[in-house]
Formats: sequence, structure tokens, C-alpha cells
Amino acid sequence: MNYQKILDTIHSEMSYRDVGGKVASYIPELAKIDPRKFGMHLYCGENQHYGFGDSEEKFSIQSISKVFSLCMAMNIMGEDLWERVDVEPSGNPFNSLTQLEQENGIPRNPFINAGALVISDILVDHLENPKEELLSFVRQITGDADIEYDETVASSEKSTGFRNIALVNYMKALGNIKCEVEPIIDFYFHQCSLRMSCRQLAKAFMIFANKGKVLENGEKIMRPEIVKRINALMQTCGFYDEAGEFSFEVGLPGKSGVGGGIVAIHPERYSVAVWSPILNEKGNSELGMKALEKLTTLTGVSVF
Amino acid sequence: MNYQKILDTIHSEMSYRDVGGKVASYIPELAKIDPRKFGMHLYCGENQHYGFGDSEEKFSIQSISKVFSLCMAMNIMGEDLWERVDVEPSGNPFNSLTQLEQENGIPRNPFINAGALVISDILVDHLENPKEELLSFVRQITGDADIEYDETVASSEKSTGFRNIALVNYMKALGNIKCEVEPIIDFYFHQCSLRMSCRQLAKAFMIFANKGKVLENGEKIMRPEIVKRINALMQTCGFYDEAGEFSFEVGLPGKSGVGGGIVAIHPERYSVAVWSPILNEKGNSELGMKALEKLTTLTGVSVF
Amino acid sequence: MNYQKILDTIHSEMSYRDVGGKVASYIPELAKIDPRKFGMHLYCGENQHYGFGDSEEKFSIQSISKVFSLCMAMNIMGEDLWERVDVEPSGNPFNSLTQLEQENGIPRNPFINAGALVISDILVDHLENPKEELLSFVRQITGDADIEYDETVASSEKSTGFRNIALVNYMKALGNIKCEVEPIIDFYFHQCSLRMSCRQLAKAFMIFANKGKVLENGEKIMRPEIVKRINALMQTCGFYDEAGEFSFEVGLPGKSGVGGGIVAIHPERYSVAVWSPILNEKGNSELGMKALEKLTTLTGVSVF
Amino acid sequence: MNYQKILDTIHSEMSYRDVGGKVASYIPELAKIDPRKFGMHLYCGENQHYGFGDSEEKFSIQSISKVFSLCMAMNIMGEDLWERVDVEPSGNPFNSLTQLEQENGIPRNPFINAGALVISDILVDHLENPKEELLSFVRQITGDADIEYDETVASSEKSTGFRNIALVNYMKALGNIKCEVEPIIDFYFHQCSLRMSCRQLAKAFMIFANKGKVLENGEKIMRPEIVKRINALMQTCGFYDEAGEFSFEVGLPGKSGVGGGIVAIHPERYSVAVWSPILNEKGNSELGMKALEKLTTLTGVSVF
Repeated sequence: MNYQKILDTIHSEMSYRDVGGKVASYIPELAKIDPRKFGMHLYCGENQHYGFGDSEEKFSIQSISKVFSLCMAMNIMGEDLWERVDVEPSGNPFNSLTQLEQENGIPRNPFINAGALVISDILVDHLENPKEELLSFVRQITGDADIEYDETVASSEKSTGFRNIALVNYMKALGNIKCEVEPIIDFYFHQCSLRMSCRQLAKAFMIFANKGKVLENGEKIMRPEIVKRINALMQTCGFYDEAGEFSFEVGLPGKSGVGGGIVAIHPERYSVAVWSPILNEKGNSELGMKALEKLTTLTGVSVF
Repeated sequence: MNYQKILDTIHSEMSYRDVGGKVASYIPELAKIDPRKFGMHLYCGENQHYGFGDSEEKFSIQSISKVFSLCMAMNIMGEDLWERVDVEPSGNPFNSLTQLEQENGIPRNPFINAGALVISDILVDHLENPKEELLSFVRQITGDADIEYDETVASSEKSTGFRNIALVNYMKALGNIKCEVEPIIDFYFHQCSLRMSCRQLAKAFMIFANKGKVLENGEKIMRPEIVKRINALMQTCGFYDEAGEFSFEVGLPGKSGVGGGIVAIHPERYSVAVWSPILNEKGNSELGMKALEKLTTLTGVSVF
Repeated sequence: MNYQKILDTIHSEMSYRDVGGKVASYIPELAKIDPRKFGMHLYCGENQHYGFGDSEEKFSIQSISKVFSLCMAMNIMGEDLWERVDVEPSGNPFNSLTQLEQENGIPRNPFINAGALVISDILVDHLENPKEELLSFVRQITGDADIEYDETVASSEKSTGFRNIALVNYMKALGNIKCEVEPIIDFYFHQCSLRMSCRQLAKAFMIFANKGKVLENGEKIMRPEIVKRINALMQTCGFYDEAGEFSFEVGLPGKSGVGGGIVAIHPERYSVAVWSPILNEKGNSELGMKALEKLTTLTGVSVF
Repeated sequence: MNYQKILDTIHSEMSYRDVGGKVASYIPELAKIDPRKFGMHLYCGENQHYGFGDSEEKFSIQSISKVFSLCMAMNIMGEDLWERVDVEPSGNPFNSLTQLEQENGIPRNPFINAGALVISDILVDHLENPKEELLSFVRQITGDADIEYDETVASSEKSTGFRNIALVNYMKALGNIKCEVEPIIDFYFHQCSLRMSCRQLAKAFMIFANKGKVLENGEKIMRPEIVKRINALMQTCGFYDEAGEFSFEVGLPGKSGVGGGIVAIHPERYSVAVWSPILNEKGNSELGMKALEKLTTLTGVSVF
């Protein structure tokens, strides 16, 4: 498969002009991003890297980071994790308190905000230095020490994150949060502030296309049956209340973030990341979704 | 892969005694089924059939039939279909009026009852003899003329199906139903009353693992890009509000029915059907889900 | 109290020009009404009638009729009635299926559509000729034989009333409807089609201000403790999801209809009806509510 | 009317043995109360006091205090108050986040927790020493300096009040809270911790039966039109999601608290308070409601 040629086709046929959404505006740092940014990177084997555009520029990965913290929590808790968070699509906007109320404080899945906050609680509870350990984990699977939190973004979200603080307090009232509110929120916003490029994201997510092992050095990060489940979760829950649409159009497991990034994987074939900061009304990168649909259409293969 | 050996392992290690749910009771005909029934059939290539137990006994396929009528509606309407029904997981019990009310009469997906009733409306609207044509379609893709409606089940559901009648009237009030209520309901309950064996279901669903072609004679039924989308829909919406759980545990696209049947496919590998009438509280065959989980665990492969 | 002077003040200070809503449009017969119509009638003792404007012109009383059928059902069922319908404000738009679903088919109160349909079911179940008996009852308490159904309105609503048909079927599925759907709906739409003038409504509702007796002849229609409860229901549930607003602004028990009528009573003082067909977004007569607020402000008394 | 005789009848015919609910358990101080406590006090004119049982023992008035803070907020804000809180019955349990989410942070009424927290925000925003000023106000209208906060109850609620903290943060996210979270919560829990006897409550609430004036010294506290509105709010919203039931059975405006107190008024006749700590499943004093129903049945008058 000539992946570079396919990516070049996508690059030449698509641009930010084709989409009508808006850059995320709820924190000033995200609102400042140039809406014309567009990059994509596909990684499919040792030293097999293909990309275009702004694929090496770092951006705020936001909710994509929830996959990393979920891996760490699964490694710590094993199957017990699923007593505190479910594995079903949410069917509601990504920050719904309503659903949480109806379901007694058990978030619908680990990728909605409530679920990611429970995961944060677990990591804060079990790890000595959760922020440092998350950074180490991401650097390890990416094989790249040049990944950092963006403290400006982290504090900006923290100062306005009343809804997330409400979620943590509410789940604490319902008995599903153990630690203090402050360190959970601090960890959560730092996690979301991670800055990575498409190339780094594609490298990091290769473990999900490679049965849990770092491709370049064979290091085992997770057992294959855990990888299968994380992929299943990305397939059914990775795109807020647009997971069905992404499955339907793209046909790959993936995860998006309000920074405009999307990463997707085809097990045993490749991992791919795309970045365009213009979001549709569901909060997913509009151009990113189209680019990935084009990718699976042009390659003619998806998991389905 | 020695599929027969894997199926034999499943057969010997699992039985109806392992599960604690109940046979569907809302219509007398389903309530009468022997809860000990258990059969499974895997089909992976011309004349490559593997099975055990009651795999050749016919049962009421119920909601599994929704995949057949969806295929017909997609062939008739093309992309326009998606203006009348969405492709997102429901996140609510399979017959929720609440969600429909919140979303102006557009059902969340074609596999919840409301969505299947819109599909029924489309077929009743466009086809001369919708019941006969559905039967022909199913016989054609199965390569088996011995498939019939169960008139007793159809009338039994019809006489007590007030909730479905409510759904059709409600969507008519919201402008998403065109035909009269009576023929839609008549078609819907006939479709659900189809009787097929695991072997027949595995043969019928092979088109979804074979890019839209009947395996045995190469006849093209649907275009591959439509097949990809139906598979995506089965993955995210095929199990009522347990779609995430099925993806998570089994990792294949599939569809269940309250008759206790489940069919799943692994694209380009196999299609498989299992039957055990004892349902869990979400309305899916409890033993069926366990058997399929065992299958992907023992084979070591799933779409993820 | 010089009621005529107070009414004259209301008449001179208020008109349809002061309000910005719309005449009900969902059935053609209601949409045709002249939006400038405005009438009011207050009745406070034998031959003590005060009014202005179109107070003697008949209009479609719509949901105001629900109070009449409730009286009949209470006389038939006594306390048992409350096993089939609750007495709480709905907190949701007047035709909500959502709430019904959450509460197992028990409507929140007898004045939302679902509740009124349960009342219809009861009357159809217990009475030989429910439509005739309702008419007799209304004529009896009004002391006026010149009250009729409007067959055009009744059939017009019936032919488009899919949402109400949905409600009845849905409650039948949940076990709270006993009769066939057709006669219930037929009765319901006839009841809503009753045509009465403000003067007739004020006379009819005097029984609720007079401890259950017809003022002019002393005939006992209902026991005082039942009257107290109907008044309480009008106070908390008489105005769809604007009951709080009406209590807050007007401070009297009352009932509105989408034909633009509102009737209210002050126990042991008076009953009053007002008509202006322009509705606010909650479905209540905008000018009618303002006129009644003015009335309790100018008289200086309300139940509070 | 011989009120003492009526109260004696209630006392002799009713006791805690007739009810099957439970004392509030969510804070230790409330859980410790003797469930056999039962007192009632009616006040209907200068020096006209009638009572029985534990009517002079102080208890935690909890949500009854929301009427006092509402009065203060209405005196400060006037009509502008209603831009920040609505006047409709909630139709949902008293601490529902769901409804708040659907209605953009505007609480349904000032007596549900969310509404009372907005009132707290207003008082904290406008008053120098809100806790002291509330205490002064309550002492003034009661004509009794012997009323205090219970610091143990206040801190006990504060340490476990995650749900209320969630509510404030959530409304802050939605733009309906201006002050810091901490002082709002501190004021709110102090307000709820007020300890008063039935006699004191009856005296305090006499202003609502006396057009806004302190009965004993004629001091004007509020304008009559504001009193009318507070009474209307108590009538439609004073009993969580059981307001309809209370109106229906008792027929008076009133307010309950989870400490087991209920206070009700009959405009221009009397104010009455009752205390029995056993709550029904809606959180209202079971025996208290029965006693008040008996009162309006035996007196034969209610506002309806």
C-alpha cells in the first residue's frame, strides 16, 4: 500500500476551507490556534513514517490523553476497574450530569469527563507522583522524551473548570471518588494539557495496533487482551456522542480531543493521527474526521 | 484454525446451567421455549461448516431480522436513509420513547424498535409486497428456500404490541412516518417472527463477512462500502444498551434477538450464530454472549 | 366590591395588541379564530353577573373540559381514582411521554393529556353513553341546555391526534388503560370540542366556589371535600408547566385551554372566565393571564 | 373555632406508631433524634396560642429556613430575583441536577436546593454579615431573641455536603453564581441548622398570614403583594415533589424540612407548625402531613 501517495491525495484535496465549524473557545489558549493548521501522520512499521502538513507541530491533545491514563489504571486495577466505570457509549453530550445521576455515580465509560475523573482519582490514589508517572508512561510508549505538559493550558482550564469540579463533588456524594477534589482536578487538567504532534501520537498509539508492545524495541506495555478492550472502547466510545458516526464513516477505533486532534488505529496495520483545530458541533475535528474517512476509503480497508 | 475443536471446547465447557437469566416472557410463544436449548454454527468458506448442539433447530430470530430489512432499505434509499434514522448508539433501553421525544422523532439508530419501525415504513412505502420481498431476500442470501414467517408469533406480538403501536403513532405525530400504522406494524411483527436455525443465520450473514457477495455463488447483494457501514452499525448498536459490553468482551460486529439468538461476523474470516434462549437483564442471550467471548478468546483474534 | 368597575378597568386598559403570542395552529378550526377576541365574565351570586367584550360568544374550551370529566370520574371511582393517576404538578410540557415512561404509566395528574386520557378510559369503561352523560353533566351544572360538542373540531383533532393515540397505546402497554383505544380517543376529542362562552364557564365553575352546590338551585353535585381537592389540583396543575407562574401572579385555582379560555375561582366569592385566543409559549392565553392578575391586584384579594 | 379542642383530638388520635417512615439519616445529628417526638402549635391572634406535645422543644428546621432567606432576597432584589430562579414546581426529587442541566442553570424554584443556593449567593453578595443578618431577621419576625444556629449540625452537613458543592460549582459553570463557593455553602448550611420550636415557627410565619406585618407590634416586614407570592410559592413548591399531595390533602401553603418540621398558614386566620421527625420517602414528615390534613378536615376550611 502506497500510504504516502494516499496521504498526498488527502492533503491536496482537503483543506480547512471545506469545513464550517469553530475552533474550541472555552479556554483562551485553545481559541488562539490558527484554524488553518492541518497535519497527518501514519506509522505502519519500523521507520515507516508517512505524513504531510503540520504533522510535526505540537498541539494540545486534550481528551486523547484519556487513553493513556486508562492504560495506566487498567494496569493498576485489572478487572476491578469496571466496578467503578462502565463500558457503554454515553448517548449524551460528553459532560452530562444527567446520566451520572440516573446511574448512581458510575460513569458510562472512561472517556466521558466523569469517567476520566474517576480514572484520575484512581491514579491519584495509587501513584506517588501521578503527573510524573503519566509523563514517563507517554514518553516510554512514544520513545520520545520531548513531551511536556502545558502549564498555561492546565491552569487556564483549572480556573474555569467548575463543571468538572461539580462532577467530582457529585461523584464523591455518590461514593465513587476516594481522594480529595483538588489533586484529582489538578491531575486531570495536566493530563489534558499534554502537547504532542501527530507524529508523536501515531508512535504512541502504535502499541494498540501492535498487541501491546512498543514496535521499535518490542517492550511489552500491556497484555493483548487488554489492548483488544481498549480498542473496543475507542470504537464504541471514542468520539463523545458521535462514536457511531465515526465507526460508520471511518470504521476504525480512535479517540479525539477538543484541541482538534484525532488518532486512530488499524490493528496489525498502522496507527494514524490527524490534526485540524476546527471542531464540528459534537466537539470533534471536522476535517480530521473527513481525512480519516478518505484514508479508509482510499485504502479500501477498515476493521469492518 | 481448527474451528470444530474450538466449538467443541465451548460446547463441553458451557451450558444453560451457568447462566441465571430468564427466557423472554412477553409473548406466550417465546415463553414456551426449552431454556436448555444451546446451539452454535460457524461458517468460514465454501462447505466449511462447524457446529454443535441445537444448531440446526429453527427459532424466532426477532430483532436479528432488523439487519435484513435495513439492507433492503439501504438498497432502496441510499444515503437519503440517514435523514430519517441516525447511526448512534442509543444509550437507553431498546424501546425508549424518551430519547425519541428529545430528538424530534429521528430514532437513534435502525436497530432500536423506533428505528426498525421507520425502516418498516420505508419498505411498506416502496415495495409492492414487502413481506414476500423480505422473505425472498432472506432466502436468496441464505441460499435456502426453507425459511418462513411464524404466523402464530406474528399475531401474538401484534395483539399485545401496544408499545410499538405507540411508537409508530408518536413518530407519525412528529412527521417521520408516511404510511398507515396497520401495515407497518403488520410487516414489523412478521419480520420479527422469522424462524431460522444457527446454520441458516451463519449462511445469511456471510454476506457481511464477504464484502456483500453470497459466498457460494458470488452473487453481489450489496456494495462493499454499504457492508462496511452495516458492520459498523452492528458493532456500535447491535446489542441494545449493551453494545459496548459486547464490543468489549467479544470484539466483533453482531446482532442479537430476544429469541435468544446472536449472530456475529469477522470480516473476511467467518460468520457465526449461537442460540440459547436465556436472556440477561439487557435482553441479550447470556450464554450466547459468553460463547462468543470464548470463541474470540480461543481463536485469539477479533476485529480489534 | 364593585366588580363591574374593575372589569371595565381591565377592558379599557388591556387588549390583544399588548401580547405577542400566537393563536393555536395545530388544528385548522382553532387557527381560524380572530385573535382580537377578548371577553371576561365574573359571577358572584344569584343574578350577579359582570362582564365585558366577547363574554357571551362561544369558543372551544379544550382542556378546560378536563375539570368536568374529572368530576364525573371522582364521583364514580372515589379515592380509587388516585391509584391510576397522581396529583403532582408535571414539571414538563403538557404532552410529555418521557415522564410517563419514567413513572410506569401513571400520569402525573389528571390535567396533562395522559391523565385526561386515563379519565376518559374510566368514563368509557363505566358509562353507557359517556359523551351524552358528559353533556348532561355540563348542562346541569351550568343550568343551560345550550351547550354542544363541535363535531368539526372533534373530527379534525381526531384525524391528526397521533400523539394522543400514542399516549393511549403506551399506557395500554403499561397496563393503565382498560378499554379499546378508539372510543377513548373519540370521547377525549369530543370533550375537548365543547363550545361554551365565558358566561357559561363562569356559571359552570361556580360549583367549585360554592362547596359543590349549584348556586341557583342548591343542587348538590359533589361533596365539599372533593371540591377542595379539585381546587387544589387546579391550583397546582391547571396551567401545564406554568402552574407556578399562574399561582404566583394570580393566586387563584384555575384551568386553561388552548382555545384561549381560562376559568378561575375564588372559593366562597366568585368564579370568573376570560377568553383571548392568543397563547404564550406554554400554551396559555397571554391576555387571559394578565387580565386575571389585574383582577386579583385590583380586588386586593386572592386565596393567598 | 375551638382550636385547642381540635388540636387535642389530633394529639389523642395520632402518634408516631401510625407511620412507617424513617428519621433523616444523612447527618448524624438528625439521625439521633427520638422518633417519638410529636408537637404542634397554632397561633391565630395576639396571645392566642394553642399547642400540644413537644411544641416548645427546638429542632433543626432545615429547609423551612429557605422561606426566611427568600424573604430577605426578595426585599433586596425585588422583581429582578426572578431572572435567576423560576417559580415552577420541580417535578423532580429535591436535589436534581438533571433538571438544572436541562434548564441552563436556572433553578426551578427557590425551595429546591439549587434555588436556595442561588438565594444564598445573592445574600452573600449583598450583605455584610449574611449569617448575622438572617439571625436578626428571624428573631425580629418571631419576636424572640432565643434563636440560634446549631454549629454542630452546620459543620456536619458541610463536611459531607458534596452534592450541594457540586450544585454550586455547576451553576457557577452555567453563570448563575457570582460569589466564591465556600461562603455560599457556609451560609447555606448555617441557615439549615437553625433551631426553632413549633411555637417559634408559628410565630415567625404569622407574617405570611397577616399581610406581611408582625402581628404583635404591627411592624411591616414585607409588602402584601410579596407575601401573596411567597404563599403561592409555598403552595406549589413547598414540599419537594410532593407539593401536589400536600395541596390536595391539606389545602394550605406550607413548607417542610427534613428535620421533621412543617409549617403552614391560612391567610388571615392562623399559622401552624407541627413536628414529628419520621419522614416519608419524599422527605416530608409523615405524621406532620397527616396532622395538618386532620386540622383542615376538622376545621372544615382551607384556602380551597
